[in-house]
Amino acid sequence: VTGASALARERFSIPNDVIYLDGNSLGALPKVTPERLRALMREEWRSDLIASWTKHDWIDLPMTVAARLAPMVGAKPEELLIADSTSVSLFKLLGAAVRARPNRPVILTQRGNFPTDLYVVHGLADLLGLEVRTVAANEILSAIDERVAVVTLTHVDYKSAVVHDMAAINAAARAVGAFTCWDLSHSTGALQLDLNREGCDLAVGCGYKYLNGGPGAPAFIFVAERLQDELRPPLQGWMGHADPFAFEDQFLPGGGIRRFLTGTPSILAIAALECGIATFDGIAMAQIEARSRVLSQAFVERVEARCGDRVRLASPRDPAKRASHVCFAHQGGYAVMQALIERKVIGDFRAPDLMRFGFAPLYNDETEAIRAADTLGDILDSGEWDEPRFHERGKVT
Amino acid sequence: VTGASALARERFSIPNDVIYLDGNSLGALPKVTPERLRALMREEWRSDLIASWTKHDWIDLPMTVAARLAPMVGAKPEELLIADSTSVSLFKLLGAAVRARPNRPVILTQRGNFPTDLYVVHGLADLLGLEVRTVAANEILSAIDERVAVVTLTHVDYKSAVVHDMAAINAAARAVGAFTCWDLSHSTGALQLDLNREGCDLAVGCGYKYLNGGPGAPAFIFVAERLQDELRPPLQGWMGHADPFAFEDQFLPGGGIRRFLTGTPSILAIAALECGIATFDGIAMAQIEARSRVLSQAFVERVEARCGDRVRLASPRDPAKRASHVCFAHQGGYAVMQALIERKVIGDFRAPDLMRFGFAPLYNDETEAIRAADTLGDILDSGEWDEPRFHERGKVT
Repeated sequence: VTGASALARERFSIPNDVIYLDGNSLGALPKVTPERLRALMREEWRSDLIASWTKHDWIDLPMTVAARLAPMVGAKPEELLIADSTSVSLFKLLGAAVRARPNRPVILTQRGNFPTDLYVVHGLADLLGLEVRTVAANEILSAIDERVAVVTLTHVDYKSAVVHDMAAINAAARAVGAFTCWDLSHSTGALQLDLNREGCDLAVGCGYKYLNGGPGAPAFIFVAERLQDELRPPLQGWMGHADPFAFEDQFLPGGGIRRFLTGTPSILAIAALECGIATFDGIAMAQIEARSRVLSQAFVERVEARCGDRVRLASPRDPAKRASHVCFAHQGGYAVMQALIERKVIGDFRAPDLMRFGFAPLYNDETEAIRAADTLGDILDSGEWDEPRFHERGKVT
Repeated sequence: VTGASALARERFSIPNDVIYLDGNSLGALPKVTPERLRALMREEWRSDLIASWTKHDWIDLPMTVAARLAPMVGAKPEELLIADSTSVSLFKLLGAAVRARPNRPVILTQRGNFPTDLYVVHGLADLLGLEVRTVAANEILSAIDERVAVVTLTHVDYKSAVVHDMAAINAAARAVGAFTCWDLSHSTGALQLDLNREGCDLAVGCGYKYLNGGPGAPAFIFVAERLQDELRPPLQGWMGHADPFAFEDQFLPGGGIRRFLTGTPSILAIAALECGIATFDGIAMAQIEARSRVLSQAFVERVEARCGDRVRLASPRDPAKRASHVCFAHQGGYAVMQALIERKVIGDFRAPDLMRFGFAPLYNDETEAIRAADTLGDILDSGEWDEPRFHERGKVT
């Protein structure tokens, strides 16, 4: 059947007996990553030692690897860099935004936003005496006013997979002179993004989900070119200096996106992320987005056919309105997910009752979607999920 | 000759023809690191995917790896963690300190402090409207007064290798209710530290210098146990939450040092740092400190015997007053260093005229110190350093 196979399964090393539907939490291992890191250690670090920073262009790696992401998110290469964690990156951008709007006391965000985004927002607001305005998703547009310095939202809801209308929110913010700062953690590598066409100001995104960069991979930062000279991150460090190796006492921000660097980033971690990004080589994001909807839709239809009203779809029914994962609610969702994992169908659980399944078209296919749905049906039929061992807590997933 | 050989050269993979005296900038590759990362990728990430966070204790790695550092710096295991870059870590600690002293407007630091430390201080001060008091090294004690929230200094000067008197400065700060925050980047793995005995409050340190953690390795944070409940980092993220996987909207800081975590740290980078820290296994820091002084002293004496007044020692003459590197000044220092590097004696250059040589007793020995000094003498004798190619700029070292 045309389109029935994964787009690039051969680029990954995944155990054969596993149906892995949690690439939205930790992407699978690209086959080339171990060899790339071995070469970096043996042929760069070992052999050229300190000279590697120039000889192997480590010094530019945060920009050169980010540039490979540019076509995937609709940004210019010089609008992206890779450095710190998503949380730290978000702090930098929000800090820069509120500094550039000193007379505006409000950071606007969404109730139920991904928790670390809320923690970062509140940490910054507490530090600066700002006000956090937290509203429901459908109240965002009406909550944007001239007291708002920056609107920060996660583009794709980490539970429901609902996708925000970026263009509308960007336009509303720009109309009142507020910035937008998007968290693209559940979008990048899953949806076709066009940050510039949608009018985005600022964004961060995760490296270890759909981008397959490895556990705790560094995040990326997007700053629209038109804003780069205006903004200064509060977290300024030597790698963001115009001339880091001049060792000057005074901070002189580097040109363009480079000023958003802070300390020395992990070269091993960025190199691993580059391998993850390379798993998308030659595959259009439009194709990935379309395939992810085919996969999630096949899964949804099979689950509903097989399980009926024993589960409830907690994501938009219209595939065009959701991203690359879907959630089903079940009162015993935690235990059902543990039973699925024991049968090597790996998704994750989000309180209070959501079973979450992510589809990564690079390595997932329809057969997996159907088998996962059937396994869920079997587990509900047999009632095995209600065995005590599946109710034990303490798992990370 | 007793003590003439390196303490653990066999633990490193270093090209045989190189005399590497820049481990204070990028430590050498531990032999076990490539295999450890391969295993982490193949046997953990690949095989257990998302379950690795609990199955392989990734979730606790920032604390468990840091705990291995504890005896090296005189801290309790639960006073340390590994996460972000040195610059980001410093921002976190200084931000926490000034928040805990809301009526004190001054951050005190030193002129000529390592540049990123100054940039972080000024970035934080600009953000919060605080005052930066910058004084010379010998004016620090007298500049500590009740307007000071926090004193932040690099323990070992990155150029001269002069060592601050931690105990005296900590005592003076505590007497007026100010915090101290030490940057241990040029101390950790070089000097015998006893952070608690010296009365330190807060500290950060670099993972990629003497600790051999690899390029851009994450830094460590120290927060004295007595302060952990009092302080709250302004950079709060989900990994610092008391229960990250409860996904609560409200931030509830974790107990102890854990609250100083922010985002998800790179597991690959922390695992590489663990291999670097393991190169110190079984070797007392007192022995390392003593050996480093033997090495640098042998180098200083040979350079002065061989080069006379063509170079000037720019580090303390008394070995007890300096750390594990030494600087010599020469008007053509940049070009002389490039000529040394061409002859495979690798140090680095710091403007305006300093040639810097670091001694890592784990892999450096006296023979190297003597040969490096003789090579310097040969280069000065021959005048070859004045050839145009050695004056070309653009090198990172």
